[in-house]
Amino acid sequence: MLQANDPKLKSWIPVAKDSDFPIQNIPFGIFKTKDEGPRVGSRIGDMVIDLNALFVLGYMANLPFDSEDFKTEYLNNIMQKGKEATRDLRNRISKLFREDFPDLKNNEQHVAQVLVDVKEVEMLLPIYTRDYTDFYSSEQHAYNVGCLFRDPNNALLPNWKHIPVGYHGRASSIIPSGVAIHRPKGQKKGPADEVPVFGASTLLDFELEVAFFTYQGKPLGDSITTQEADDYIFGMALFNDWSARDIQGWEYVPLGPFLGKNFASSLSCWIVTLDALEPFRVPGPKQDDPKILPYLEYSGNKHIDIKLEVLIQPEGGEENLVCTSNYKHMYWNMNQQLAHHTVNGCNINTGDCMASGTISGPEEGQYGSMLEISWKGTKPFKMSDASERKFINDMDTVIMRGYAEKDGVRIGFGEVSSKLLPAK
Amino acid sequence: MLQANDPKLKSWIPVAKDSDFPIQNIPFGIFKTKDEGPRVGSRIGDMVIDLNALFVLGYMANLPFDSEDFKTEYLNNIMQKGKEATRDLRNRISKLFREDFPDLKNNEQHVAQVLVDVKEVEMLLPIYTRDYTDFYSSEQHAYNVGCLFRDPNNALLPNWKHIPVGYHGRASSIIPSGVAIHRPKGQKKGPADEVPVFGASTLLDFELEVAFFTYQGKPLGDSITTQEADDYIFGMALFNDWSARDIQGWEYVPLGPFLGKNFASSLSCWIVTLDALEPFRVPGPKQDDPKILPYLEYSGNKHIDIKLEVLIQPEGGEENLVCTSNYKHMYWNMNQQLAHHTVNGCNINTGDCMASGTISGPEEGQYGSMLEISWKGTKPFKMSDASERKFINDMDTVIMRGYAEKDGVRIGFGEVSSKLLPAK
Repeated sequence: MLQANDPKLKSWIPVAKDSDFPIQNIPFGIFKTKDEGPRVGSRIGDMVIDLNALFVLGYMANLPFDSEDFKTEYLNNIMQKGKEATRDLRNRISKLFREDFPDLKNNEQHVAQVLVDVKEVEMLLPIYTRDYTDFYSSEQHAYNVGCLFRDPNNALLPNWKHIPVGYHGRASSIIPSGVAIHRPKGQKKGPADEVPVFGASTLLDFELEVAFFTYQGKPLGDSITTQEADDYIFGMALFNDWSARDIQGWEYVPLGPFLGKNFASSLSCWIVTLDALEPFRVPGPKQDDPKILPYLEYSGNKHIDIKLEVLIQPEGGEENLVCTSNYKHMYWNMNQQLAHHTVNGCNINTGDCMASGTISGPEEGQYGSMLEISWKGTKPFKMSDASERKFINDMDTVIMRGYAEKDGVRIGFGEVSSKLLPAK
Repeated sequence: MLQANDPKLKSWIPVAKDSDFPIQNIPFGIFKTKDEGPRVGSRIGDMVIDLNALFVLGYMANLPFDSEDFKTEYLNNIMQKGKEATRDLRNRISKLFREDFPDLKNNEQHVAQVLVDVKEVEMLLPIYTRDYTDFYSSEQHAYNVGCLFRDPNNALLPNWKHIPVGYHGRASSIIPSGVAIHRPKGQKKGPADEVPVFGASTLLDFELEVAFFTYQGKPLGDSITTQEADDYIFGMALFNDWSARDIQGWEYVPLGPFLGKNFASSLSCWIVTLDALEPFRVPGPKQDDPKILPYLEYSGNKHIDIKLEVLIQPEGGEENLVCTSNYKHMYWNMNQQLAHHTVNGCNINTGDCMASGTISGPEEGQYGSMLEISWKGTKPFKMSDASERKFINDMDTVIMRGYAEKDGVRIGFGEVSSKLLPAK
C-alpha cells in the first residue's frame, strides 16, 4: 500500500466526515484567486493548497519540479515529468499536512501563504487536452440504447463484446465545472418531418461519465499493453458528455457523433490520482462469452468502485436526484481501453482525455442519461416541484458527484455542475 | 486581385516552367538545416526562404511579427496574428523577391543568409493541430462507398445531401511527408471469419484528400457563417488519410472510424495560402435537389480547381499513376464545412485541421482510394512491373501531388509521400 493511502493518516487541516478531500486524496487542480493568476493546487478539507507557494518556500526540495511547473495554467507540466514524479509530489504533500508532522503547521506565516479557503478560489480547467476519446464501455448503457433504437433481442451490436468501442471527440469544447452552456442549434429530422429542419435542440441530454488523463505515451507505431496501462494513467475526473439527441440522431450514420456532442463537455476540476483510487479496485465482469482477444486480457483487479450520482436543479429550485450509478459497472476497464487505443500504433500524449462512455447500472434508477431514464421520453421523470423532465430544460443545472469509500476513507471528486442556458 | 497573385510578376530567383512554387505562390512551412533548428520558411523555385533571417536582417519592418514567430516549430504563431497579418507577410515576401525590386538581390551577403537550396533542408510538420476533423464531402466517393457496401439504388445515405458529414479524427498521429509508417495491427472480422481475429491489416488503403487549416475562431457558443468562413481559413495542403479497411469495417458501427484511421495521416509540408488559391475559384454543383438549409447557402465561387494525382512506387521501382482527380469535384465546399462545424457553437482554434474526405471524380481513373480503384479488390490495378495492387503492399511508397493552373501560373503543393513499412 502507498503510504499516502493509509486509512490511519490524519491531517492537521480539519476535514469534515463527509468531505471528498481527506488527506488520503491529495488531488490536483488549477486555481486562481482575486490577487493571483493560475497555479497548481491540491486540496484537503475546505483548504486549497498552493503548490507554487510551497515550492517558493522550499517545501518541494529534492523533487524534480521547478516554479514554472506550478505557476502555470495546466497540470500538463507536472504530468510531463511522469508517474514517479507526481507520486513523489503527492507523497510530499501528504507528509507536509500530516497531524504527526507539524513543521509547516507551526509556521503561521507559511501556513497563511500556502492555504487558501476554497470559497476564495476559482477553479479552472485543470488539463490541456489535445486528443479526446470517448468510449462506450458500459454494457447496460449499450444494451439500453440498443433496445431503444433497435430491439431487445438484438440490442448489443456484434462487435460490442469484442472491442472497447470508442470514437474521437472534440477537445476544444471541454470546459470546467461552473461554466454554463447554451442549448445548441442544428439540423434534425424527427419521424414526422419530411425534410430536415434547423433549430434549437429539443432533446438535450447529459451523459454520466468519468474520464482519465494520460501521461506521455510511446512513439507513434508502438503499443501500450493492459499490464503497462496503469503507468500511463495520471488520474480521473467526472465528465458530463452533453448530447443533443435530435442532432446526433440525424447526423451519426455512418461516421459517428459530431455536432450532437462537440458543443460542450463538462469536466470536474479536481483530478484524483490513480494512486489515490488504488484501494478501491474491484474485479470486473467475466469476459468469456464471447472470449476476448489476448491483447485485451489483463490480470488483477482493474475496475474501480466509484459511487456516482446525477442531480437536476431547476432555476431557483432544489436538487433532484435523477440517478445513482457506479463506475464498477463498466464492461471494459481503462487498461483495456488504453491497450485497444494503441494496439494499432496510435500514439498518446500528456493530457489526453479518455472518457468512459455513459455509465449505466443494471437497474432502473441507475441509468446515466435522460434518454435512458425517461426511456426515450416515454417515462418522464417527476421532479419535486411537480414538473416533469424527459430531457434537460433551459436554466436547469446538471450536477454530477462521485466518490469511492472504504475503511472509513472517502475519496471524492467534488462535482461537475453546469447550467443550460437558452439557445443564442 | 491581390497584387501578389498578378500573373505578370516574375522573381529574380529562377523558377522552372513546371515548378509548383512561382512567386505567385509564397507558401509557408517549417524547415531545419544541418546547422540550425526549426524556423519558418517560404519557397520560390528550388530556394527555401528563411523568414527568420529576413526578420533579423530587418526586411520585416512594420509587420506585426517578432523573432519568436519565425524561429519556432510551427506556423501557429504567425497564424495567431490573423489573416491581415499573414496576407501582409506574403505580400512583403512577394515584393522582396520581385524581379523589379532588386534591393535584396543586390546584397549578396544577405542573399546568402536568406536563401537555402531546397536540397539542404528537412521539412517538418508545419502546423500544430489540436483538433482534426475529417469530412466526407465528395459525392462520387460517398456514392462509390454506398455501391460497394449497400446497393447502387440506395448508395447515398438520407442525410448526405443535407449535411456536410464529418467526424473527429486523431491529431496526434498527423505526420509530415517523408515519414514512413508501419502497417497497423488490429481486430478484424472478414466474411469468412466466425469470430474476430487479431493481426496486421491486409486491406491498407490511402485516401486522396486536401486539408485546410484555420485561424483562431470565435468563442464557444458562437458560429461562423459561410460568408465569414474565408476569413478563418489560412491555407491548404495535401492529406493522405491512411485507412485500414478491415479494421475500420469491423469497428465503425455505430460510432464511426477509430483505429482504422488513427494510426497515421500524412500531410504535405508547404501550406499554400487561400489567398494564393483565389484565382482558381470555380462554381460548385447545384444544391437544390434536395434544397439545402439556409445556413449552408453561400454566394460567389467557393470551390477551387486543384488538379490532384496519386502514384504508387514499389521499392526500387518506378512511380505508377493510379488516379487523377480534382478538388473542384467536391459537393460541399470549405465555407459550408466550417459553417456546419460551428453552427452548434463548436469553437475552432488556430491550427485546426479540416480534411475534405476522399476526393473522387466522376469517372473511373478518378477515384481517390484503392477501395474504389480496385472496386473492393475485384478489379486489381495493373502496375508497370506486371504486379497487381488491390490495396497497398509493404514497402510501397504512396505519393500525392496537386496544383492549380491558370493564365500560365501554376500554384502547387509539392507532394505528400510516405512509405509503408511492414507491421512491427
